[in-house]
Amino acid sequence: MTVHQTDVAVIGAGPVGLFAIFELGMVGLRCHVMDALSAIGGQCVALYPEKPIYDIPGYPSIDAQQLIDRLAAQAAPFVPVYHLGAAVTGLEELPDGRWRLSNTDGVQVEAGAVIIAAGVGAFGPNRPPLAGLADYEDNSIFYLVDRREAFRGKRVVIAGGGDSAVDWAISLAEIARSVAVVHRRDKFRAAPESERRLRALAAEGRIEMVVPYQLAGLEGADGQLSAVIVQTLKGERRSVPADVLLPFFGLSMDLGPIAEWGLALEQKHIAVDPASCVTSRPGLFAIGDIATYPGKLKLILTGFSEAAMAAHAIHPLLRPDEVLRFEYSTTKGVPG
Amino acid sequence: MTVHQTDVAVIGAGPVGLFAIFELGMVGLRCHVMDALSAIGGQCVALYPEKPIYDIPGYPSIDAQQLIDRLAAQAAPFVPVYHLGAAVTGLEELPDGRWRLSNTDGVQVEAGAVIIAAGVGAFGPNRPPLAGLADYEDNSIFYLVDRREAFRGKRVVIAGGGDSAVDWAISLAEIARSVAVVHRRDKFRAAPESERRLRALAAEGRIEMVVPYQLAGLEGADGQLSAVIVQTLKGERRSVPADVLLPFFGLSMDLGPIAEWGLALEQKHIAVDPASCVTSRPGLFAIGDIATYPGKLKLILTGFSEAAMAAHAIHPLLRPDEVLRFEYSTTKGVPG
Repeated sequence: MTVHQTDVAVIGAGPVGLFAIFELGMVGLRCHVMDALSAIGGQCVALYPEKPIYDIPGYPSIDAQQLIDRLAAQAAPFVPVYHLGAAVTGLEELPDGRWRLSNTDGVQVEAGAVIIAAGVGAFGPNRPPLAGLADYEDNSIFYLVDRREAFRGKRVVIAGGGDSAVDWAISLAEIARSVAVVHRRDKFRAAPESERRLRALAAEGRIEMVVPYQLAGLEGADGQLSAVIVQTLKGERRSVPADVLLPFFGLSMDLGPIAEWGLALEQKHIAVDPASCVTSRPGLFAIGDIATYPGKLKLILTGFSEAAMAAHAIHPLLRPDEVLRFEYSTTKGVPG
Repeated sequence: MTVHQTDVAVIGAGPVGLFAIFELGMVGLRCHVMDALSAIGGQCVALYPEKPIYDIPGYPSIDAQQLIDRLAAQAAPFVPVYHLGAAVTGLEELPDGRWRLSNTDGVQVEAGAVIIAAGVGAFGPNRPPLAGLADYEDNSIFYLVDRREAFRGKRVVIAGGGDSAVDWAISLAEIARSVAVVHRRDKFRAAPESERRLRALAAEGRIEMVVPYQLAGLEGADGQLSAVIVQTLKGERRSVPADVLLPFFGLSMDLGPIAEWGLALEQKHIAVDPASCVTSRPGLFAIGDIATYPGKLKLILTGFSEAAMAAHAIHPLLRPDEVLRFEYSTTKGVPG
């Protein structure tokens, strides 16, 4: 059992957690960062590493992976210690007011304050209720596209009517042997421009619209699909040949063990004071998508601002005798 | 007299005002931007175009001018209309609830909402009380360094003890014929590392420390300095040969006409609701350094977050019948 001592423990190595390292560093605090995923980047990198993001200030367009790389470089001078690939399971308040976190690898981190930057928490895909589903998962059924190239030459069936379904249908139509989109009605919840492109590709015969149908069954053997069975609300069934199935029914959020920490919650989010991002337990802070307050916007750039706010609120707790000389980074530079 | 009609009028074309254009565009609103300075960029570009900023998320280091260029590029798809080089002087609420702004060029902009992103307001340098000062200003006395190269080969006298004085003394020592630093005491309010470098250069004879002295007079003719007269608190006087004088005594903030608009103020800042950035007058919003609320941090990245918040708060005011489908930019992309 390793017990690490540090100023602040950050839960979550997504973009907001990474920027918290930098902001803590700017006020002279060091941190350890814990994440259940085996790589930094959080939801960004896990769900859409190659997709451009348009609303990071100063970046007209940037891929999620690029953004993560740059945030990690910005944080690096403050030598964060990462504990990845193991979910935080335990939180304990110590008699001296410090906090002890433990993860599924048995790593323990003791810190004077905790920042929860866990995004949507332990999120997972909404799974279609199909017999034998588990046999195919990660073999020929995937809930996210990790590497687009893996689908080259494949017969791809995509299920769902939102942006993920529509965008990936358009994208994979370029390289797949065939693409079929299964949706329960002829209306999509996607950006109008994307839907227009989907229908244009369907008109050209490059995408098959399996509408209005729902998933009804799977055919195949040894984890390898051969067809997806679909049916209408009236019970009309047909079989769509398939090498892979991509069900895009959204993500369900699960706070996991965080829900047991006695924090005031609001609709599965952690309620914080917008003046400091402190939770209902002094010493525990929450920032980014997991935190809520009146007017909260779930934007990465909002989380960046909250990271700065939390760092400045934590400083007087951990360094009560130190006056923080607050200045623009242009005059102060990055401390060594 | 030109009267422009638009959704939102943005006062201030600094980094936060520029990002407001983008966030307004993302919710489908167009804007006109008004600034007293003749170029976009605000304080950033006016005061330190070539100095690196370290705390823009995703940029381990970026020059102020580069940041402004990228924010302008990010805003460009939303075709903002800029009215530069003329200060906003008038604000009037129209009978239909819209607002009319006018500037010193006689331009009028009518908008459904106003975002005040005026930074430190109509800021100006603190001027030393010296006889004949105005004759030399902009000729051989400067309150900011626009282009470092202009000082090559010159005898430079710098007055002040803060970061600007120390940093420019170090920087100009590389190219000036001589650099003298006039400060009233032997203690500086600069970053420790910068002060160490200043003293090292003084020890090498590359910077003359005129300490403890204060500015007492100017010598020269036709706007061209020949010497700066300094004296101690005890009245001991001496003359320091000079081609240029750079007094760095900080900036004084002046809200200018904004102070007359009936907005609730707190210590020369505009008080806003942190849930929306609305001021005490519905329809008028304030973001960035000019806005304050509990826990406010004067950081550019905080202003970015406030820009998003204001845009989302303005949307239902101007488009009450439109449901804003709020999504990540990754799925929605930038609207055309």
